[in-house]
Amino acid sequence: MSENEMKLVVVGAGGRMGQTLIRVIHETPSVTLHAAIEREGSPFLGKDAGELSGVGPIGVAVTSDPLQAFLNAEGVVDFTAPAASVTFAGLAAQARIVHVIGTTGCSADDEEKFTAASRHARVVKSGNMSLGVNLLSVLTKQAARALPAEGWDIEIIEMHHKHKVDAPSGTALLLGEAAAAGRGIDLASQSVRVRDGHTGPRPGGTIGFATLRGGSVVGDHSVILAGEGELVTLSHSARDRSIFARGAVAAALWARNKKPGQYSMLDVLGLSNQ
Amino acid sequence: MSENEMKLVVVGAGGRMGQTLIRVIHETPSVTLHAAIEREGSPFLGKDAGELSGVGPIGVAVTSDPLQAFLNAEGVVDFTAPAASVTFAGLAAQARIVHVIGTTGCSADDEEKFTAASRHARVVKSGNMSLGVNLLSVLTKQAARALPAEGWDIEIIEMHHKHKVDAPSGTALLLGEAAAAGRGIDLASQSVRVRDGHTGPRPGGTIGFATLRGGSVVGDHSVILAGEGELVTLSHSARDRSIFARGAVAAALWARNKKPGQYSMLDVLGLSNQ
Amino acid sequence: MSENEMKLVVVGAGGRMGQTLIRVIHETPSVTLHAAIEREGSPFLGKDAGELSGVGPIGVAVTSDPLQAFLNAEGVVDFTAPAASVTFAGLAAQARIVHVIGTTGCSADDEEKFTAASRHARVVKSGNMSLGVNLLSVLTKQAARALPAEGWDIEIIEMHHKHKVDAPSGTALLLGEAAAAGRGIDLASQSVRVRDGHTGPRPGGTIGFATLRGGSVVGDHSVILAGEGELVTLSHSARDRSIFARGAVAAALWARNKKPGQYSMLDVLGLSNQ
Amino acid sequence: MSENEMKLVVVGAGGRMGQTLIRVIHETPSVTLHAAIEREGSPFLGKDAGELSGVGPIGVAVTSDPLQAFLNAEGVVDFTAPAASVTFAGLAAQARIVHVIGTTGCSADDEEKFTAASRHARVVKSGNMSLGVNLLSVLTKQAARALPAEGWDIEIIEMHHKHKVDAPSGTALLLGEAAAAGRGIDLASQSVRVRDGHTGPRPGGTIGFATLRGGSVVGDHSVILAGEGELVTLSHSARDRSIFARGAVAAALWARNKKPGQYSMLDVLGLSNQ
Repeated sequence: MSENEMKLVVVGAGGRMGQTLIRVIHETPSVTLHAAIEREGSPFLGKDAGELSGVGPIGVAVTSDPLQAFLNAEGVVDFTAPAASVTFAGLAAQARIVHVIGTTGCSADDEEKFTAASRHARVVKSGNMSLGVNLLSVLTKQAARALPAEGWDIEIIEMHHKHKVDAPSGTALLLGEAAAAGRGIDLASQSVRVRDGHTGPRPGGTIGFATLRGGSVVGDHSVILAGEGELVTLSHSARDRSIFARGAVAAALWARNKKPGQYSMLDVLGLSNQ
Repeated sequence: MSENEMKLVVVGAGGRMGQTLIRVIHETPSVTLHAAIEREGSPFLGKDAGELSGVGPIGVAVTSDPLQAFLNAEGVVDFTAPAASVTFAGLAAQARIVHVIGTTGCSADDEEKFTAASRHARVVKSGNMSLGVNLLSVLTKQAARALPAEGWDIEIIEMHHKHKVDAPSGTALLLGEAAAAGRGIDLASQSVRVRDGHTGPRPGGTIGFATLRGGSVVGDHSVILAGEGELVTLSHSARDRSIFARGAVAAALWARNKKPGQYSMLDVLGLSNQ
Repeated sequence: MSENEMKLVVVGAGGRMGQTLIRVIHETPSVTLHAAIEREGSPFLGKDAGELSGVGPIGVAVTSDPLQAFLNAEGVVDFTAPAASVTFAGLAAQARIVHVIGTTGCSADDEEKFTAASRHARVVKSGNMSLGVNLLSVLTKQAARALPAEGWDIEIIEMHHKHKVDAPSGTALLLGEAAAAGRGIDLASQSVRVRDGHTGPRPGGTIGFATLRGGSVVGDHSVILAGEGELVTLSHSARDRSIFARGAVAAALWARNKKPGQYSMLDVLGLSNQ
Repeated sequence: MSENEMKLVVVGAGGRMGQTLIRVIHETPSVTLHAAIEREGSPFLGKDAGELSGVGPIGVAVTSDPLQAFLNAEGVVDFTAPAASVTFAGLAAQARIVHVIGTTGCSADDEEKFTAASRHARVVKSGNMSLGVNLLSVLTKQAARALPAEGWDIEIIEMHHKHKVDAPSGTALLLGEAAAAGRGIDLASQSVRVRDGHTGPRPGGTIGFATLRGGSVVGDHSVILAGEGELVTLSHSARDRSIFARGAVAAALWARNKKPGQYSMLDVLGLSNQ
């Protein structure tokens, strides 16, 4: 461990995402695992964080005491649950460190507490921590704005593994929202989500969705802008579930020297003004 | 014109497909336009076939007399209408020449007449004259047979221009039938043609369809076989409507020295036994 | 023709690009063909511009007098040669109209003359008039800037028809320049243009090129940004050579109410500040 | 464990491939891990095979005694080294069981010993155990045979991770060999492996290769057949290194009730006659 490595705490260390975070931190040269936290009563307490995540012993035992851990850390990476994240936000504010929040399903009330915490903490929060997907949403918005609706039709296609139970994916809808924002239209009323049988010609200005399911695909998304005689296609292919952990660690490093405040992955990408 | 060029007659010479055929024959070294036929009363009668199709004068005037034209020809290429094609089949049988039929919407009765004609004519008939699409359907059948349904999910995605009024495309359904034949299942009962909202996990053994519409796309089709950790994708992209004319001319050349009989594009591809 | 249609002059009307421009203007509702110009001695002089471009008579005869034609027009679309374009620029400045210049191979001296003309004319000039390709170059620059070189490798792949004699394509190099600009690096010294045999691991920070050739492909380009566990791909597929004419007409319409000056396709796309 | 599960032995159980095999066998319902073998002196001896491969304890300790293990097993899956595989082949022949060999770099002498063993063992041997890649090679051969070289150009493009040190990949060359076999040409003399600068038009009948490198891509391959106005693309995307283990287990199950003999993955796919 070098002096300059950023000291990160993983909360929810025994979960699938927690273990992935521990592996990614272990592989990433500029960060180090400072502490691994689990809730009271977890069977993982006391175990070596490296061993439980499959990278071999690393000398960091899982504990249930975040207070102590946060004080000497520089950042906490958090894919837990809303109530836990609110608690961690308070502790991160006290410690004046970085809090990367990938937790989903937070209420307006929770969000207010994150905002309050961001007076002292540097909070980076996003529903999707993948750098690639966040970039794609910005590029989609710009493309939809630049290419006029009269001549360019927007279609969004996604593929996920056979176990996924809903359609279109949340990311496909997020890309649809980005396209609608670029066009200045309302996505809900301008979506075409089903085509079967006699559909008639494509209604101008709409955004179409199509869904594929099969195998073990982690998540492939494409936004197609189809004009007369040409196609622009913007795609993302997630090959590995670790990309969300990687994005979170990249966010922590980005926020390390920032002022306290609330940030998004677009800030991390330097694209928040688009 | 070399001695060895195959002498072809285009029927329906004034229509969009007829004009494309005249252009393709003009560009293809091993064939020559022997005659161009239109119905009595057509405004194109007497005009130079090359001029009306945009390749400049070629010295072949459009006529309404197929009988004379067929006798000295080696093949007729026909994308007209069922009644006309039945008449041309009779004349092609008399002349003992090749009759390539791309006409769609023929009745069982019409088909019987084509079969009768094929005792003397060499008839090549297909609902889709593109070499690439016909190849894709054979490869799809083989892939569906080789990769077991328990581990490999089949999805078919197609994109066409914004004016197309039905979904999925006829070619997508043809590929679905090829996949179902390879699997030994019934396509109608095993198709998933719509996914929206809470779909539940993908039902094993089904064949999924997805449809994109936009711009001026002539026709893109992909068959995806998705397994655990790997994807096989078989695709066709039609970039130009001339491919149907090109396939028909290739079929005529293929049939030139064959025995009288009924043939398909799979015979032309040498894949009829698959 | 409605009162509000923009009156456009096509210069070089007898050439392949000129004819395509006449067809595109004929199909586009908000513009009308005001005049069609050819050089003195052209065999096309006096012929109907619509007839020679295959859309049927439109009542506009090809002339060799640009002066008269420009005075009552609102814009001129020009894919000719440097010397001719310089002359047309002078006339467009006198007439204070729009001059869209797709001419390539212009010298620094020519460019100075375009700049001089742009004090009175609204000049839109670009080496590639496709809206999609220009958009792709902006998105490539942004993506290259947003995704750090340590973690994201950039590859550019293009495919063109079998007759193309050079590699990589000019558009692939233009996309490479956009990526290099986003990264703040020098393309020439950071390009990998060939891989064969023992190459060693990919040098970090480089931009790789790969070239495919075959069939009649008009031009397909993809920029791939490959990270750990994810891929972002930005693609353009030209399906029809008319896209350059369409982009030029879109540029003319965009410039109609702009102040005199020099503009690029990025201005037309509203992306010149990226 | 059901009575009917096929009892498999993993040799080289402590290596990366061995561990993957143990995980895949653990997840696959119709097979069970009968024994896990490592060489004398391995630090893994005596450890639980499930624990070392990350699936938790399964009650099978790693041993160094293949003789005992093979006698009560139905198959052995082997991605070790030539000398070890030759020994295992002898033991598999004695036990008259299935021997799936993914070992590479075997000499002609080794191959003779595998042939000798196949009088009693059912040997399935392949340089690439992925079902998808093997299918792709058969489909490539057929497509290359069906679509004539005068009109259809073949291009092969592959992408792998940034650490790969050679180009094109072995699988790209294997696909090239399949295409050359379909065309009845010699690959070495008909390959175009580099395009840069002034290349001239594409030489007819050649097979082109292009190579992309970046990120962590496991292996993507496409064979493109480009005709006038249409493209056929046959692709494989490996998303996970476990596909080779999955293919080996599928091969073992396929061979379970076959007669002694030598088989390939094409036999497993039912495509050996293509």
